[in-house]
Amino acid sequence: MSESEPVPVTEGAVAADGVVFEDPEYRLAVVDLLGVIAYGELSAFERLVDDAKLAPTVRDRVEMGAMASLEFGHVVRLHERLRELGTDPFDAMAPFTAAIDLFHAHTAPADWHEGLVKAYVGDGLAADFYREIAAYLDSGTRDLVIASLEDAGQADFAVRHLRRAIGEDPRLAGRLALWGRRLMGEALTQAQRVAAERDALSALLAGGIDRPGLDLAAIGRMFTRITDRHDQRMADLGLAA
Amino acid sequence: MSESEPVPVTEGAVAADGVVFEDPEYRLAVVDLLGVIAYGELSAFERLVDDAKLAPTVRDRVEMGAMASLEFGHVVRLHERLRELGTDPFDAMAPFTAAIDLFHAHTAPADWHEGLVKAYVGDGLAADFYREIAAYLDSGTRDLVIASLEDAGQADFAVRHLRRAIGEDPRLAGRLALWGRRLMGEALTQAQRVAAERDALSALLAGGIDRPGLDLAAIGRMFTRITDRHDQRMADLGLAA
Repeated sequence: MSESEPVPVTEGAVAADGVVFEDPEYRLAVVDLLGVIAYGELSAFERLVDDAKLAPTVRDRVEMGAMASLEFGHVVRLHERLRELGTDPFDAMAPFTAAIDLFHAHTAPADWHEGLVKAYVGDGLAADFYREIAAYLDSGTRDLVIASLEDAGQADFAVRHLRRAIGEDPRLAGRLALWGRRLMGEALTQAQRVAAERDALSALLAGGIDRPGLDLAAIGRMFTRITDRHDQRMADLGLAA
Repeated sequence: MSESEPVPVTEGAVAADGVVFEDPEYRLAVVDLLGVIAYGELSAFERLVDDAKLAPTVRDRVEMGAMASLEFGHVVRLHERLRELGTDPFDAMAPFTAAIDLFHAHTAPADWHEGLVKAYVGDGLAADFYREIAAYLDSGTRDLVIASLEDAGQADFAVRHLRRAIGEDPRLAGRLALWGRRLMGEALTQAQRVAAERDALSALLAGGIDRPGLDLAAIGRMFTRITDRHDQRMADLGLAA
């Protein structure tokens, strides 16, 4: 390579996936997606540690801390990738802080059990949604997104504690089932808000000249899949969805 | 080795440091020390993430998160070592939770700047104290203790932010100087409480048949060194001690 041809910042991605990053609209959508996931994981990290205060034992606090530290590791890797793409990770996260902060402000758990349901159901919903989007991405970005959404053990931890608690006090089931529906409703509200404001991210789902997209029927099927998985998670807890 | 001679759980330590762990009093003191440091770091981890909520920018929250994750890594290593010594890490931490929780309950920062002073001055004080004790330990334990107390960047971070803030609003200096004295007082109160309750830990400083200890004059000099370092930290912030 001659000196007049500087290495483009996106070279890694281009080498792996051809010319996708030459489309500025696509690049913007990927930056948006990594930005929203990074801020979501930063928030999840902080919330896990915060909710650990409600834990009944020091052992539970240490388990929550271990899961939180893994989430923070994901933030670090997403930031590295954003820098490789020539973007300040804090600029990439900025458009999504309001929606994610509102989600958390509207769903502050009142006790340890609500916190566990939120960690399990909330993180599960977010992961399902981002995984659906990742299917439309270049393989490098897709792999990073999927690795970032890997369950750090929350699911097992929450199911184990919640099934036992509901077994000991069956009245918990009604309250936590309502709480699960509220989490789903609030997540949809904030997701719609983000979709309405971020054209590039929405356009990603609609496709481009060289990329397949989703028609309305396909988007409908996607939401059905996400809802089905939510119902399955609630059922795993022994709760009505 | 014949089957009638099971590998002792402390073999690694014995191999490194001779027979020190055959003294049950010494082993108990080491378990106490690793237990109190582990619970202190677990609390520091949780407090750093908690205080990050007061941070003025998302960038500051990410820096706090990175420091907190490093602290959590120390907890993991201290727990591994306690298990090697044949002790449940949660049993080892249990005698110290009340004192450390009280320290934090009595020193909840009212704002971002108080949180920074606490991270800097509080962690510094604890690290100085444990480093003094580590000088009387076998080299394996000493190395682990010193590695666990390594500053995860808090000091630089806090000094940088606080000097700028005090420069912009000199009235902060008076309030934060008082706050530093309160932190020192509360730390001494809780340390005395622990020393009064944990004979093995106190006996460690007094020495044993084969180990050198501290007479009262030496303990006095130790506290003078710790106080001097505290004053130096306050001076680094531009504050009166």
